[in-house]
Amino acid sequence: MKWTTAFIPTLREDPQDAEVISHKLMMRAALIRKLTAGAYSYLPLGFKALYKVQNIIREEMVKAGAQEVLLPALQPLELWKKTSRDKDLGEVMIKFRDRHGKITCLGPTHEEVITDLVSREISSYRDMPKTLFQIQTKFRDELRPRFGVLRSCEFIMKDAYSFDANEKDMELSYKKMYDAYERIFSRCGLKYIIVEADPGVMGGGLSHEFMVPAPSGEDIVVVCDSCGYKASKDVFVSKAKEPKDGDPCPKCGKKIKLQNTIEIGHTFKLGTKYSKPLGAKFSDRDGALRDIIMGCYGIGVNRIIASLIEISNDKDGIIWPAAIAPFEIDILPLNMKNDKIVKISDKIYHDLIDKHIDAIIDDRDVSAGIKFKDADLIGFPYQLIVSEKNIKNNIVELKDRKTQKAEEIKIDEVTKRVKGVLYGD
Amino acid sequence: MKWTTAFIPTLREDPQDAEVISHKLMMRAALIRKLTAGAYSYLPLGFKALYKVQNIIREEMVKAGAQEVLLPALQPLELWKKTSRDKDLGEVMIKFRDRHGKITCLGPTHEEVITDLVSREISSYRDMPKTLFQIQTKFRDELRPRFGVLRSCEFIMKDAYSFDANEKDMELSYKKMYDAYERIFSRCGLKYIIVEADPGVMGGGLSHEFMVPAPSGEDIVVVCDSCGYKASKDVFVSKAKEPKDGDPCPKCGKKIKLQNTIEIGHTFKLGTKYSKPLGAKFSDRDGALRDIIMGCYGIGVNRIIASLIEISNDKDGIIWPAAIAPFEIDILPLNMKNDKIVKISDKIYHDLIDKHIDAIIDDRDVSAGIKFKDADLIGFPYQLIVSEKNIKNNIVELKDRKTQKAEEIKIDEVTKRVKGVLYGD
Repeated sequence: MKWTTAFIPTLREDPQDAEVISHKLMMRAALIRKLTAGAYSYLPLGFKALYKVQNIIREEMVKAGAQEVLLPALQPLELWKKTSRDKDLGEVMIKFRDRHGKITCLGPTHEEVITDLVSREISSYRDMPKTLFQIQTKFRDELRPRFGVLRSCEFIMKDAYSFDANEKDMELSYKKMYDAYERIFSRCGLKYIIVEADPGVMGGGLSHEFMVPAPSGEDIVVVCDSCGYKASKDVFVSKAKEPKDGDPCPKCGKKIKLQNTIEIGHTFKLGTKYSKPLGAKFSDRDGALRDIIMGCYGIGVNRIIASLIEISNDKDGIIWPAAIAPFEIDILPLNMKNDKIVKISDKIYHDLIDKHIDAIIDDRDVSAGIKFKDADLIGFPYQLIVSEKNIKNNIVELKDRKTQKAEEIKIDEVTKRVKGVLYGD
Repeated sequence: MKWTTAFIPTLREDPQDAEVISHKLMMRAALIRKLTAGAYSYLPLGFKALYKVQNIIREEMVKAGAQEVLLPALQPLELWKKTSRDKDLGEVMIKFRDRHGKITCLGPTHEEVITDLVSREISSYRDMPKTLFQIQTKFRDELRPRFGVLRSCEFIMKDAYSFDANEKDMELSYKKMYDAYERIFSRCGLKYIIVEADPGVMGGGLSHEFMVPAPSGEDIVVVCDSCGYKASKDVFVSKAKEPKDGDPCPKCGKKIKLQNTIEIGHTFKLGTKYSKPLGAKFSDRDGALRDIIMGCYGIGVNRIIASLIEISNDKDGIIWPAAIAPFEIDILPLNMKNDKIVKISDKIYHDLIDKHIDAIIDDRDVSAGIKFKDADLIGFPYQLIVSEKNIKNNIVELKDRKTQKAEEIKIDEVTKRVKGVLYGD
């Protein structure tokens, strides 16, 4: 992509209503814009990162044997009455009366819809195991939407649901998703911890939260460095009193510490919490009718991006891992009035594009300073600098955004070297 | 994918509430299920087709220079009051009062949101031309949702918006989208006609509708076979009286005919209809502040699938073009108790998958009749039949779903031949 044709309205100043660093940087780097409280538009650079995250999730879900579906956002309230979750969710659930007087709600999550669907289509133990997932928009009327896309009223969730004939099989389905989650977050460049958690409004048995440690995080987890015990504060509180640094670990007795963490994934062993009230039964090997054993697995897709930025930035801007960066490399012709610089930069750009490297060329006729500032702010993993001094020696500079270290490379070896740093080829 | 692990609950009988063939077949072929009036769940096969259509659209939009964004479904009603379209849309627009008492609506379309966004970010003629698009869910409270996904309350739309400094540039942007639409519909295997249309609630100047002729279509267009004149009935009515077959063509005077068509795309020259009330202005070359000239371009993504099925089916089921089929080829081992059949089928399956051919293997231990019935019903473009008789002669049969003609191919030439029929390799 050429910068002059792209839509990248970066901002010099922090927006006034942004409280956390990811929100500030997502606005300044032209990833998002606010439409109204809790609802954000993704601009092209933000959408590209979001799309790359979605594709990583999709790949790993399919690898784990899950099949993609797409369920409606519009849901009949009656379905929620069957599980009484309309009461549990309360004002968080957005409801409206349609022109025929029927009360419809906007799905804050999809356990009811998918269980209702499966109850009509799965009838035998032979139809299982099945894991279905979707990448879809959820709606929640948050009391206090804040932190940009970290807590908004409309957000993209990957939600998966497993259906099994017995607890043992459910454990296998659960493990597959758990492992897939580890691969997803690693590929997205996130450092995360996994804690035992309170299932909350989802109900059911054990659950695990995938958390990204960050100073600005609102969720507090209890960590024991001695034995490795990790739990959400809610679980801990139910076992003991309000915890503080230095309290004894419930497992080994050594000292625990508290850590701030902005949740990116949650896996739940639901058991029969939804299958029972919604009548999702199957005939077992012995002919007996039993309730389907379920699991559910959520990932906040927008949150992956915000969490990454929250922990991967410096004073100049965002630092993207290549796998989810809006572009992998930014080519900077430092003087657009120098024909030789323009020609060489353009050739490098086309060579990289031909090799399917996701490159952008900053072909604006602006100062080198502005180009460097924007490149650092948006945080493309690599910058390729084409300057008058360098091309005289038949070289260009390849700068690593994170370390800010530059190496000189021969012009005719650019593609090979860039593939090397990006993919280890 | 192996059929035994897939989620493909085909139905033997037509669903009672389905009026048109696409709705019947989408239900029977396990593409969709109804959740409530006007809201459908896509099952894995339906989602796969939908996803392939989305990717074709995405590719052609990017090729035409458009950049992808993602705008919120939740929109403040005030924005709609600025253009008075809250009144135009009336009860079609879904509105609710949030917990703070603010009236929010669910976007039935996004002209207001994108124009408001662009009004803050584009300030000079140098910032244009720009074309932004999204593939996103729209909500409309239809008076009478019907025909499955052809007229539902929740649907996926590709909506693009162009922003130009003058009429001449807008014509160029419009032409690019118009050409992209032709490529998209052709790649999806749709036979379509393009008619002059009434812009309706969108407003602005000239518009074009992309229509698929189908006997069940609700939209009537006027066609003149002599001079090629084509117009929607609404345009025609505004020029003359209610038309009927044999009326004189307004262009050449010869006889017109009426044709039934379920619109799949619409392109609009909006002019300044939205930029003016929403204050989307720019400084021109001469320093003067002018209103941005806009175009907008919609495609009903779900409708592409339903329209295709509406015109591409026979008594046995759907006939998919390979480009958007849920799977490109269905391998049918006719007897799962014959080890040699199972082994050969399995090897063929893995060979095809290795060559990135989107294959499914019907590994169910059911009769050949059931396998053929499901293969024809879902309508995979090709069936690869592995039977006892054939493997004795070291061959398998490759059957074309559309013509039902089968050719014998040597087992070790299967991959090559399948690539040949699918991609012309």
